[in-house]
Amino acid sequence: MKVNKNYLKLEESYLFSTVNRKVREYQAKHPDKDIIRLGIGDVTIPICQAAIDAMHEAVDDQSRKETFHGYGPEQGYDFLKESIQKYYKKNCDVELELNEIFISDGAKSDVGNILDLFDKDNTVLVPDPVYPVYVDTNTMDGRKIVYIDANEENKFLPEPDENIKADIIYICSPNNPTGAVYDRAGLKKWVDYALKNDAIILYDAAYECFISDKNLPRSIFEIEGAKKCAIEFCSYSKTAGFTGTRCGYTIVPNTLEYEGIKLNKLWLRRQTTKFNGCSYIVQKGAAAVFSDEGLKQIEKNIEYYKGNAKIIADVLDEKGIFYTGGKHSPYIWLKCPNSMGSWEFFDYLLNEIQVVGTPGEGFGKNGQGFFRLTSFGNREKTIEAMERFRKLIK
Amino acid sequence: MKVNKNYLKLEESYLFSTVNRKVREYQAKHPDKDIIRLGIGDVTIPICQAAIDAMHEAVDDQSRKETFHGYGPEQGYDFLKESIQKYYKKNCDVELELNEIFISDGAKSDVGNILDLFDKDNTVLVPDPVYPVYVDTNTMDGRKIVYIDANEENKFLPEPDENIKADIIYICSPNNPTGAVYDRAGLKKWVDYALKNDAIILYDAAYECFISDKNLPRSIFEIEGAKKCAIEFCSYSKTAGFTGTRCGYTIVPNTLEYEGIKLNKLWLRRQTTKFNGCSYIVQKGAAAVFSDEGLKQIEKNIEYYKGNAKIIADVLDEKGIFYTGGKHSPYIWLKCPNSMGSWEFFDYLLNEIQVVGTPGEGFGKNGQGFFRLTSFGNREKTIEAMERFRKLIK
Repeated sequence: MKVNKNYLKLEESYLFSTVNRKVREYQAKHPDKDIIRLGIGDVTIPICQAAIDAMHEAVDDQSRKETFHGYGPEQGYDFLKESIQKYYKKNCDVELELNEIFISDGAKSDVGNILDLFDKDNTVLVPDPVYPVYVDTNTMDGRKIVYIDANEENKFLPEPDENIKADIIYICSPNNPTGAVYDRAGLKKWVDYALKNDAIILYDAAYECFISDKNLPRSIFEIEGAKKCAIEFCSYSKTAGFTGTRCGYTIVPNTLEYEGIKLNKLWLRRQTTKFNGCSYIVQKGAAAVFSDEGLKQIEKNIEYYKGNAKIIADVLDEKGIFYTGGKHSPYIWLKCPNSMGSWEFFDYLLNEIQVVGTPGEGFGKNGQGFFRLTSFGNREKTIEAMERFRKLIK
Repeated sequence: MKVNKNYLKLEESYLFSTVNRKVREYQAKHPDKDIIRLGIGDVTIPICQAAIDAMHEAVDDQSRKETFHGYGPEQGYDFLKESIQKYYKKNCDVELELNEIFISDGAKSDVGNILDLFDKDNTVLVPDPVYPVYVDTNTMDGRKIVYIDANEENKFLPEPDENIKADIIYICSPNNPTGAVYDRAGLKKWVDYALKNDAIILYDAAYECFISDKNLPRSIFEIEGAKKCAIEFCSYSKTAGFTGTRCGYTIVPNTLEYEGIKLNKLWLRRQTTKFNGCSYIVQKGAAAVFSDEGLKQIEKNIEYYKGNAKIIADVLDEKGIFYTGGKHSPYIWLKCPNSMGSWEFFDYLLNEIQVVGTPGEGFGKNGQGFFRLTSFGNREKTIEAMERFRKLIK
C-alpha cells in the first residue's frame, strides 16, 4: 500500500508550542508575576441563553420516541438553512436559495474538504501572512502554491496581480491574522480577476460579525459577479461562541460552474458520501442563534470583544504604532516598535510587562516584525495589559 | 480552475428513491392498507437516559463561564477516549493506547476521509454486495477498484484470493447489507493476506454490538498481526442510537507502518488540519454510553432490536429460506423465494402483504435475487409483518 507522500512535505508548526513553552518557563522562574494572555484565538464568553435553551429542548427530543431524530439530511435541516437565508437577507441583503446553503460541523472541515472537488493540477494563490490551514490542506493534495505579499505598503490587503496566474484564490476578510478588511472596491478587483481568469475564490467569512461599518461587505456575494466565481465559508464559532460546540455553513451558488460542471452538485455529492450531517442538537442551537432573541444576545457578546479591541487599538493610536484590524475584527496586527523582530518583541513584552501575544512570523515571512493581539480575553485583564503596555513603550 | 473529473464517474443510486416512490404510489392507490416498513436502516429507540443526562449537563457547562468549553483537542477529549479504551478491554480484551483512538462526528466521515492518507495509485478490494460509500469515495479519488464475490456459496463471507492483488481491503463485519459475520479463522486469513501483500484492511465495525457469541471477534484487533495491517472504524450510531446525534471513533494503531511511515501520525495531522473535533456536548453523551449505567441501558435497546431480528429469522427458518445475518446483526439478508428477482420480490411483498424491504441488487450484482430486511422497527409491527409473510410464502 502506497502512502500519500504529499504529507511528508508538510512543515511542522512550532508557533503555539513555542509560545506556550516560553510562557511556562517564565512563570516557573517568576511564580509571583501575573501573566496576561492577549494571544488567545478562542472565545471565552459562554453560549447565549437562546441557544442553550434550544439545545436542552433538542436533547429532550432525543430522549422521547415521538420526537427522536435519527439520520437527518447530510446538508443540514431546513429549519437551520432557513434561518441562515434570513440572516443573509437582513445582514447584507444577499438572496440565497436553500439548496445553496450547506450545514457542517464547522468551517475548518469545509475549508479542507472542499478541495476534494478540485483537480490536483490547479495553482493556488495564498496571501502571506496566512492561516496555515489553507497551505497545509493544499500541500496534502500536492497542488502548486504561489504567494502574494500582504504588507504595510498595501495595508495587508493585497490586490490581484495579472502577472500571477492562479486557479484557486484564498481570501479571508476580516482577516486572520491581520484583522484587515476589504472594502467593496477591493473585493470587486478580486472578483473581476477570478471571472477573467476562470479562477475560483474560496472566501473565509468566519469573522464577518465583527464588521461594524455598513459600507464594508460582510459577504462576498454582495459583490456583482461573485456568485459565478466564489464559495463562502462561515461559522458560529466566533459569531456565537461555538468553537467547542461545532457548527458552520458553506454557500455554494447554483450559478458556480467550471468546465460546464456545477460545483453545487459536486459538493452535495461529496457531503452525502463522506459526511452524515451536523448533530441535530447542535443544529437546533445554531438556529436559535439567528432568532430575534439570539441575535440580540450574541450582539452583546460581540460588542464586549469589540470593546476589548478598542482598548488595545486606542493605546496603539496614542503611541503612533502602525496596525491593522481592531475595528472590524477581534485581531489587532501591529508593527513591532523600534524595529524589533516579532520573537524579540514577544520576549520583551513577556519579560517586561508579562503580556503574551503571538509573533507575526508564525504566519509567514511578511509577519516578520509584526505581532498579533486578540480581543477574546477578559475586559479588566485587557485594560491592565494595555496600561502596562502604555507605560513600557515610549 | 479544473474540476476533479473523477466525480463524473460516480454512478447515481436510485435504490432508496425508487423504493420510496413505489411505496408512495402504492399507498396513494390503496389508502386503507397498512404498510409496514422493514427496510429502514435507521434506529428508532431514543437515546438512553445516561447519555441524555450527560448532554444536559454539557449544555449547562456551555452556558457558564467557569465550565465553558471552547476548542477541544481535534482527536477528542481524553475522558471519552479513556471510556473507549476500557470498553475495548472489557468487550474484546484488546489493549489500546489513548493516542490510537480518534473521536469524530461519525464513522461515515472517517471512512471517507481516511483515504486522504493513501496514494491514488493503489488498488482497492471491495466485496460485492457492498455499502456504496466504499466504492464512491474511491471513485472520487480515481483509484482502481476490484471486486470479490460474496455469495450463497461462501455464505457471503468471501476469503482472500491470492490471484487478486489489492492494496486497500474493505471488510465490514457484521456486514451491511448481508449481516454475515466473520469468525476468527476467517478474519485471520484476511490479516495474513494483508501482511503478506503489504496491504491495509479498513475494518468497519459499526455493528459489533450486535454480536452475541463470545467466540466471534468484535474487533479486528483480536486477531494476531492486525495491529500491523488494519484500521478500525466504529460508531455510536447503532450502538446507542446516535445516528442523528453524531459520534464515532477510529483506531489507528501506532504499529501501523507503510514505506516506513506511521499512519497514526498522518491521521493525526489530517484531523488536526481538516477537522476541529466532535461537539463537546456530544462527546459528553458518548462517554456516558460506555459508563456502567449507560452500558446496561443500551444493552436493553440492542436486545430489543435483536428480538425483532429473531422474529424475522425464525419465520425464514420455518420456511427453509436461505439467509445470512439476523443473529449477530440487525440485518437479515434472504434469498428471494421461488427464484424471484429482488425487485420482483419487492413488488410482490408490497402488493400482497404491504411489507417493505430493500432489493439486494441495489448493493451490487451479487445482490440479485436477494433481499434485505432490518430489525430497527417496532416489535408489534415486526410480528405483524412476519405473520403476513408466513401466510404468503408457501
